[in-house]
Amino acid sequence: MAFSVLDMSEDDVREFANALVAVKTDIGYCPECQNISAGGLCPVCEDPERDRSQICVVEDFRAVAAVERAKGYKGLYHVLHGSISPMKGIGPDDLTVKELLHRLNGGEVTEVILATNPTVEGETTAMYLSRLISPLGIRTSRIANGVPVGGDLEYTDEITMRRAIEGRYDL
Amino acid sequence: MAFSVLDMSEDDVREFANALVAVKTDIGYCPECQNISAGGLCPVCEDPERDRSQICVVEDFRAVAAVERAKGYKGLYHVLHGSISPMKGIGPDDLTVKELLHRLNGGEVTEVILATNPTVEGETTAMYLSRLISPLGIRTSRIANGVPVGGDLEYTDEITMRRAIEGRYDL
Repeated sequence: MAFSVLDMSEDDVREFANALVAVKTDIGYCPECQNISAGGLCPVCEDPERDRSQICVVEDFRAVAAVERAKGYKGLYHVLHGSISPMKGIGPDDLTVKELLHRLNGGEVTEVILATNPTVEGETTAMYLSRLISPLGIRTSRIANGVPVGGDLEYTDEITMRRAIEGRYDL
Repeated sequence: MAFSVLDMSEDDVREFANALVAVKTDIGYCPECQNISAGGLCPVCEDPERDRSQICVVEDFRAVAAVERAKGYKGLYHVLHGSISPMKGIGPDDLTVKELLHRLNGGEVTEVILATNPTVEGETTAMYLSRLISPLGIRTSRIANGVPVGGDLEYTDEITMRRAIEGRYDL
Protein backbone atom coordinates (compact mmCIF):
# COMPACT_ATOMS: atom_id res chain seq x y z
CA MET A 1 0.00 0.00 0.00
CA ALA A 2 2.87 2.37 0.94
CA PHE A 3 4.58 2.11 -2.46
CA SER A 4 1.27 2.40 -4.34
CA VAL A 5 0.60 5.71 -2.60
CA LEU A 6 3.88 7.12 -3.99
CA ASP A 7 2.65 6.38 -7.52
CA MET A 8 -0.72 8.11 -6.99
CA SER A 9 -1.54 11.76 -7.74
CA GLU A 10 -2.10 14.03 -4.72
CA ASP A 11 -5.82 14.27 -5.52
CA ASP A 12 -6.16 10.50 -5.60
CA VAL A 13 -4.29 10.15 -2.32
CA ARG A 14 -6.60 12.71 -0.65
CA GLU A 15 -9.68 10.92 -1.99
CA PHE A 16 -8.27 7.58 -0.82
CA ALA A 17 -7.49 8.98 2.64
CA ASN A 18 -11.02 10.33 2.98
CA ALA A 19 -12.45 7.00 1.87
CA LEU A 20 -10.35 5.22 4.51
CA VAL A 21 -11.70 7.45 7.28
CA ALA A 22 -15.22 7.08 5.91
CA VAL A 23 -15.00 3.31 6.43
CA LYS A 24 -14.80 3.91 10.16
CA THR A 25 -17.29 6.79 10.34
CA ASP A 26 -19.99 5.73 7.84
CA ILE A 27 -20.05 1.95 8.18
CA GLY A 28 -22.02 0.64 11.12
CA TYR A 29 -23.91 -2.51 11.89
CA CYS A 30 -27.37 -3.53 10.77
CA PRO A 31 -29.59 -3.41 13.89
CA GLU A 32 -31.27 -6.66 12.78
CA CYS A 33 -28.58 -9.07 11.51
CA GLN A 34 -25.48 -7.27 12.84
CA ASN A 35 -23.87 -7.38 9.40
CA ILE A 36 -21.93 -4.30 8.27
CA SER A 37 -24.24 -1.64 6.89
CA ALA A 38 -23.96 1.94 5.68
CA GLY A 39 -26.56 3.27 8.10
CA GLY A 40 -29.76 1.50 9.12
CA LEU A 41 -30.86 -1.91 7.93
CA CYS A 42 -28.52 -3.80 5.57
CA PRO A 43 -29.67 -4.51 1.98
CA VAL A 44 -30.52 -8.14 2.83
CA CYS A 45 -32.72 -7.32 5.83
CA GLU A 46 -34.38 -4.53 3.84
CA ASP A 47 -35.14 -6.74 0.82
CA PRO A 48 -38.85 -7.75 0.88
CA GLU A 49 -38.03 -10.73 -1.38
CA ARG A 50 -35.98 -12.53 1.29
CA ASP A 51 -37.50 -15.42 3.21
CA ARG A 52 -37.93 -14.24 6.80
CA SER A 53 -38.45 -17.78 8.16
CA GLN A 54 -34.78 -18.76 7.76
CA ILE A 55 -31.75 -17.28 9.47
CA CYS A 56 -28.24 -18.31 8.42
CA VAL A 57 -25.86 -17.74 11.34
CA VAL A 58 -22.27 -16.93 10.33
CA GLU A 59 -19.13 -15.80 12.13
CA ASP A 60 -18.39 -12.63 10.15
CA PHE A 61 -19.42 -10.52 7.17
CA ARG A 62 -16.92 -12.34 4.95
CA ALA A 63 -19.02 -15.47 5.37
CA VAL A 64 -22.17 -13.52 4.44
CA ALA A 65 -20.40 -12.55 1.21
CA ALA A 66 -19.41 -16.19 0.60
CA VAL A 67 -22.97 -17.48 1.01
CA GLU A 68 -24.36 -14.63 -1.13
CA ARG A 69 -21.81 -15.40 -3.88
CA ALA A 70 -23.02 -19.00 -3.88
CA LYS A 71 -26.54 -17.74 -4.63
CA GLY A 72 -29.46 -20.05 -3.94
CA TYR A 73 -29.94 -19.00 -0.29
CA LYS A 74 -32.91 -16.65 0.04
CA GLY A 75 -33.25 -16.26 3.80
CA LEU A 76 -31.77 -13.76 6.25
CA TYR A 77 -28.44 -13.76 8.10
CA HIS A 78 -27.14 -13.23 11.58
CA VAL A 79 -23.51 -12.22 12.07
CA LEU A 80 -21.99 -13.39 15.37
CA HIS A 81 -18.76 -11.34 15.05
CA GLY A 82 -16.60 -14.26 16.04
CA SER A 83 -16.87 -17.74 17.51
CA ILE A 84 -16.69 -19.22 20.98
CA SER A 85 -13.02 -19.79 21.85
CA PRO A 86 -12.01 -20.55 25.44
CA MET A 87 -8.37 -20.35 24.28
CA LYS A 88 -8.84 -16.72 23.23
CA GLY A 89 -11.19 -15.98 26.11
CA ILE A 90 -14.18 -15.43 23.81
CA GLY A 91 -17.48 -16.58 25.27
CA PRO A 92 -21.09 -16.34 24.08
CA ASP A 93 -21.44 -12.91 25.74
CA ASP A 94 -18.75 -11.53 23.42
CA LEU A 95 -20.84 -12.53 20.38
CA THR A 96 -24.23 -11.28 19.20
CA VAL A 97 -26.03 -14.29 20.70
CA LYS A 98 -28.41 -12.13 22.72
CA GLU A 99 -29.44 -10.25 19.55
CA LEU A 100 -30.03 -13.58 17.77
CA LEU A 101 -32.28 -14.91 20.54
CA HIS A 102 -34.19 -11.62 20.50
CA ARG A 103 -34.87 -12.09 16.76
CA LEU A 104 -36.16 -15.63 17.37
CA ASN A 105 -38.75 -14.33 19.85
CA GLY A 106 -40.90 -12.96 17.02
CA GLY A 107 -42.12 -16.45 16.11
CA GLU A 108 -41.52 -15.85 12.40
CA VAL A 109 -38.31 -17.93 12.19
CA THR A 110 -38.73 -21.69 11.62
CA GLU A 111 -35.13 -22.68 10.82
CA VAL A 112 -31.70 -21.50 11.95
CA ILE A 113 -28.90 -22.68 9.65
CA LEU A 114 -25.65 -22.76 11.63
CA ALA A 115 -23.02 -21.83 9.06
CA THR A 116 -20.10 -21.15 11.38
CA ASN A 117 -16.73 -22.38 10.06
CA PRO A 118 -15.99 -26.13 10.23
CA THR A 119 -13.20 -25.49 12.76
CA VAL A 120 -13.06 -26.43 16.45
CA GLU A 121 -14.34 -22.96 17.43
CA GLY A 122 -17.03 -22.93 14.74
CA GLU A 123 -18.29 -26.41 15.66
CA THR A 124 -18.34 -25.48 19.35
CA THR A 125 -20.34 -22.36 18.56
CA ALA A 126 -22.80 -24.31 16.39
CA MET A 127 -23.32 -26.90 19.13
CA TYR A 128 -23.81 -24.21 21.75
CA LEU A 129 -26.38 -22.35 19.65
CA SER A 130 -28.19 -25.56 18.71
CA ARG A 131 -28.70 -26.43 22.39
CA LEU A 132 -29.95 -22.92 23.05
CA ILE A 133 -32.34 -22.74 20.06
CA SER A 134 -33.71 -26.30 19.72
CA PRO A 135 -35.78 -26.07 22.94
CA LEU A 136 -37.59 -23.08 21.37
CA GLY A 137 -39.12 -25.49 18.83
CA ILE A 138 -37.07 -24.01 15.98
CA ARG A 139 -35.29 -26.37 13.58
CA THR A 140 -31.49 -26.01 13.77
CA SER A 141 -29.36 -27.34 10.94
CA ARG A 142 -25.65 -27.43 10.12
CA ILE A 143 -24.03 -26.95 6.70
CA ALA A 144 -22.62 -30.14 5.19
CA ASN A 145 -19.00 -31.19 5.36
CA GLY A 146 -17.69 -33.08 2.38
CA VAL A 147 -15.47 -33.23 -0.64
CA PRO A 148 -15.28 -29.82 -2.38
CA VAL A 149 -16.80 -29.78 -5.87
CA GLY A 150 -14.10 -30.30 -8.50
CA GLY A 151 -11.82 -31.93 -5.94
CA ASP A 152 -10.10 -35.28 -5.93
CA LEU A 153 -10.67 -37.95 -3.28
CA GLU A 154 -6.93 -38.61 -3.21
CA TYR A 155 -6.24 -35.14 -1.83
CA THR A 156 -9.10 -35.10 0.66
CA ASP A 157 -8.09 -35.16 4.31
CA GLU A 158 -9.20 -38.07 6.48
CA ILE A 159 -11.83 -36.27 8.56
CA THR A 160 -13.48 -34.63 5.56
CA MET A 161 -13.48 -37.99 3.74
CA ARG A 162 -15.15 -39.65 6.72
CA ARG A 163 -17.77 -36.88 6.91
CA ALA A 164 -18.39 -37.17 3.14
CA ILE A 165 -19.17 -40.88 3.51
CA GLU A 166 -21.23 -40.45 6.68
CA GLY A 167 -23.14 -37.60 5.04
CA ARG A 168 -23.86 -39.48 1.82
CA TYR A 169 -27.29 -38.98 0.30
CA ASP A 170 -29.54 -41.31 -1.65
CA LEU A 171 -29.64 -40.94 -5.42
CA MET B 1 15.34 -40.34 -9.86
CA ALA B 2 18.28 -40.28 -12.32
CA PHE B 3 20.59 -38.36 -9.95
CA SER B 4 19.59 -40.47 -6.95
CA VAL B 5 20.64 -43.60 -8.82
CA LEU B 6 24.18 -42.19 -9.22
CA ASP B 7 24.44 -41.88 -5.44
CA MET B 8 23.33 -45.47 -4.80
CA SER B 9 25.59 -48.52 -4.49
CA GLU B 10 25.48 -51.03 -7.36
CA ASP B 11 23.72 -53.59 -5.13
CA ASP B 12 21.02 -51.10 -4.20
CA VAL B 13 20.51 -50.12 -7.85
CA ARG B 14 20.11 -53.79 -8.86
CA GLU B 15 17.62 -54.35 -6.04
CA PHE B 16 15.73 -51.21 -7.03
CA ALA B 17 15.67 -52.27 -10.71
CA ASN B 18 14.31 -55.69 -9.78
CA ALA B 19 11.66 -54.08 -7.57
CA LEU B 20 10.59 -51.85 -10.46
CA VAL B 21 10.11 -54.79 -12.79
CA ALA B 22 8.32 -56.71 -10.02
CA VAL B 23 5.67 -53.96 -9.87
CA LYS B 24 4.62 -54.90 -13.39
CA THR B 25 5.03 -58.68 -13.06
CA ASP B 26 3.76 -59.37 -9.53
CA ILE B 27 0.99 -56.80 -9.11
CA GLY B 28 -2.28 -57.73 -10.70
CA TYR B 29 -5.93 -56.95 -10.06
CA CYS B 30 -8.22 -58.41 -7.46
CA PRO B 31 -10.71 -60.60 -9.36
CA GLU B 32 -13.50 -59.29 -7.10
CA CYS B 33 -13.06 -55.52 -6.63
CA GLN B 34 -10.50 -54.88 -9.43
CA ASN B 35 -8.20 -53.08 -6.98
CA ILE B 36 -4.46 -53.70 -7.31
CA SER B 37 -3.44 -56.92 -5.59
CA ALA B 38 -0.30 -59.04 -5.26
CA GLY B 39 -1.94 -62.20 -6.60
CA GLY B 40 -5.49 -63.35 -5.90
CA LEU B 41 -7.99 -61.49 -3.78
CA CYS B 42 -6.94 -58.13 -2.29
CA PRO B 43 -6.64 -57.78 1.52
CA VAL B 44 -10.00 -55.98 1.77
CA CYS B 45 -11.98 -58.61 -0.17
CA GLU B 46 -10.21 -61.36 1.78
CA ASP B 47 -10.97 -59.82 5.19
CA PRO B 48 -13.88 -61.69 6.83
CA GLU B 49 -14.53 -58.64 9.07
CA ARG B 50 -15.65 -56.43 6.14
CA ASP B 51 -19.35 -55.80 5.57
CA ARG B 52 -20.26 -57.54 2.30
CA SER B 53 -23.57 -55.68 1.95
CA GLN B 54 -21.89 -52.37 0.99
CA ILE B 55 -19.77 -51.61 -2.06
CA CYS B 56 -17.98 -48.27 -2.36
CA VAL B 57 -17.37 -47.54 -6.05
CA VAL B 58 -14.25 -45.45 -6.77
CA GLU B 59 -12.33 -44.39 -9.86
CA ASP B 60 -8.90 -45.75 -8.95
CA PHE B 61 -6.82 -47.42 -6.26
CA ARG B 62 -5.69 -44.01 -4.96
CA ALA B 63 -9.29 -43.34 -3.90
CA VAL B 64 -9.42 -46.73 -2.13
CA ALA B 65 -6.37 -45.61 -0.15
CA ALA B 66 -8.07 -42.26 0.65
CA VAL B 67 -11.24 -43.91 1.97
CA GLU B 68 -9.22 -46.48 3.94
CA ARG B 69 -7.10 -43.71 5.50
CA ALA B 70 -10.33 -42.02 6.64
CA LYS B 71 -11.22 -45.22 8.52
CA GLY B 72 -14.84 -45.74 9.51
CA TYR B 73 -15.90 -47.44 6.26
CA LYS B 74 -16.16 -51.20 6.75
CA GLY B 75 -17.64 -52.37 3.45
CA LEU B 76 -16.04 -53.54 0.20
CA TYR B 77 -14.81 -51.54 -2.81
CA HIS B 78 -15.10 -51.63 -6.56
CA VAL B 79 -12.43 -49.90 -8.66
CA LEU B 80 -13.68 -48.63 -12.03
CA HIS B 81 -10.22 -47.78 -13.42
CA GLY B 82 -11.37 -44.41 -14.66
CA SER B 83 -14.53 -42.43 -15.25
CA ILE B 84 -16.87 -41.86 -18.17
CA SER B 85 -15.43 -39.09 -20.35
CA PRO B 86 -16.82 -38.50 -23.82
CA MET B 87 -14.03 -35.91 -24.30
CA LYS B 88 -11.37 -38.59 -23.83
CA GLY B 89 -13.45 -41.24 -25.58
CA ILE B 90 -13.92 -43.28 -22.39
CA GLY B 91 -17.27 -45.02 -22.16
CA PRO B 92 -18.77 -47.50 -19.66
CA ASP B 93 -17.29 -50.42 -21.60
CA ASP B 94 -13.78 -49.12 -20.88
CA LEU B 95 -14.46 -49.33 -17.13
CA THR B 96 -15.13 -52.32 -14.90
CA VAL B 97 -18.90 -51.74 -14.98
CA LYS B 98 -19.64 -55.27 -16.19
CA GLU B 99 -17.66 -56.72 -13.27
CA LEU B 100 -19.58 -54.49 -10.85
CA LEU B 101 -22.97 -55.61 -12.17
CA HIS B 102 -21.81 -59.22 -11.92
CA ARG B 103 -21.02 -58.70 -8.23
CA LEU B 104 -24.48 -57.24 -7.61
CA ASN B 105 -26.13 -60.39 -8.99
CA GLY B 106 -25.30 -62.33 -5.84
CA GLY B 107 -28.07 -60.56 -3.91
CA GLU B 108 -25.78 -59.91 -0.94
CA VAL B 109 -25.24 -56.20 -1.69
CA THR B 110 -27.85 -53.76 -0.34
CA GLU B 111 -26.06 -50.44 -0.93
CA VAL B 112 -23.68 -49.09 -3.53
CA ILE B 113 -21.90 -45.89 -2.42
CA LEU B 114 -20.83 -43.94 -5.50
CA ALA B 115 -17.56 -42.31 -4.45
CA THR B 116 -16.30 -41.18 -7.83
CA ASN B 117 -14.60 -37.76 -7.81
CA PRO B 118 -16.83 -34.65 -7.60
CA THR B 119 -15.76 -33.62 -11.12
CA VAL B 120 -17.85 -33.53 -14.30
CA GLU B 121 -16.62 -37.00 -15.30
CA GLY B 122 -17.08 -38.42 -11.80
CA GLU B 123 -20.63 -37.02 -11.47
CA THR B 124 -21.53 -38.35 -14.92
CA THR B 125 -20.24 -41.78 -13.95
CA ALA B 126 -22.15 -41.73 -10.65
CA MET B 127 -25.39 -40.77 -12.43
CA TYR B 128 -24.89 -43.46 -15.08
CA LEU B 129 -24.26 -46.16 -12.46
CA SER B 130 -27.16 -45.00 -10.30
CA ARG B 131 -29.58 -45.41 -13.22
CA LEU B 132 -28.15 -48.84 -13.92
CA ILE B 133 -28.22 -50.09 -10.32
CA SER B 134 -31.37 -48.50 -8.82
CA PRO B 135 -33.75 -50.67 -10.89
CA LEU B 136 -32.12 -53.74 -9.28
CA GLY B 137 -33.66 -52.66 -5.97
CA ILE B 138 -30.26 -51.76 -4.52
CA ARG B 139 -29.85 -48.45 -2.68
CA THR B 140 -27.42 -46.09 -4.44
CA SER B 141 -25.91 -43.19 -2.56
CA ARG B 142 -23.45 -40.42 -3.33
CA ILE B 143 -20.75 -39.03 -1.01
CA ALA B 144 -21.50 -35.56 0.35
CA ASN B 145 -20.14 -32.35 -1.09
CA GLY B 146 -19.46 -29.60 1.38
CA VAL B 147 -17.00 -27.41 3.19
CA PRO B 148 -13.83 -29.35 4.07
CA VAL B 149 -13.28 -29.81 7.82
CA GLY B 150 -10.96 -27.11 9.17
CA GLY B 151 -11.78 -24.86 6.22
CA ASP B 152 -13.09 -21.33 6.10
CA LEU B 153 -16.36 -20.30 4.42
CA GLU B 154 -14.62 -17.28 2.96
CA TYR B 155 -12.36 -19.47 0.82
CA THR B 156 -15.05 -21.93 -0.24
CA ASP B 157 -15.99 -21.84 -3.91
CA GLU B 158 -19.56 -20.97 -4.90
CA ILE B 159 -20.73 -24.41 -6.00
CA THR B 160 -19.34 -26.16 -2.91
CA MET B 161 -20.92 -23.49 -0.69
CA ARG B 162 -24.30 -24.02 -2.39
CA ARG B 163 -24.00 -27.80 -1.96
CA ALA B 164 -23.02 -27.35 1.70
CA ILE B 165 -26.21 -25.37 2.35
CA GLU B 166 -28.45 -27.66 0.27
CA GLY B 167 -26.92 -30.68 2.01
CA ARG B 168 -27.34 -29.29 5.53
CA TYR B 169 -28.41 -31.74 8.21
CA ASP B 170 -30.56 -31.33 11.28
CA LEU B 171 -28.82 -30.99 14.63
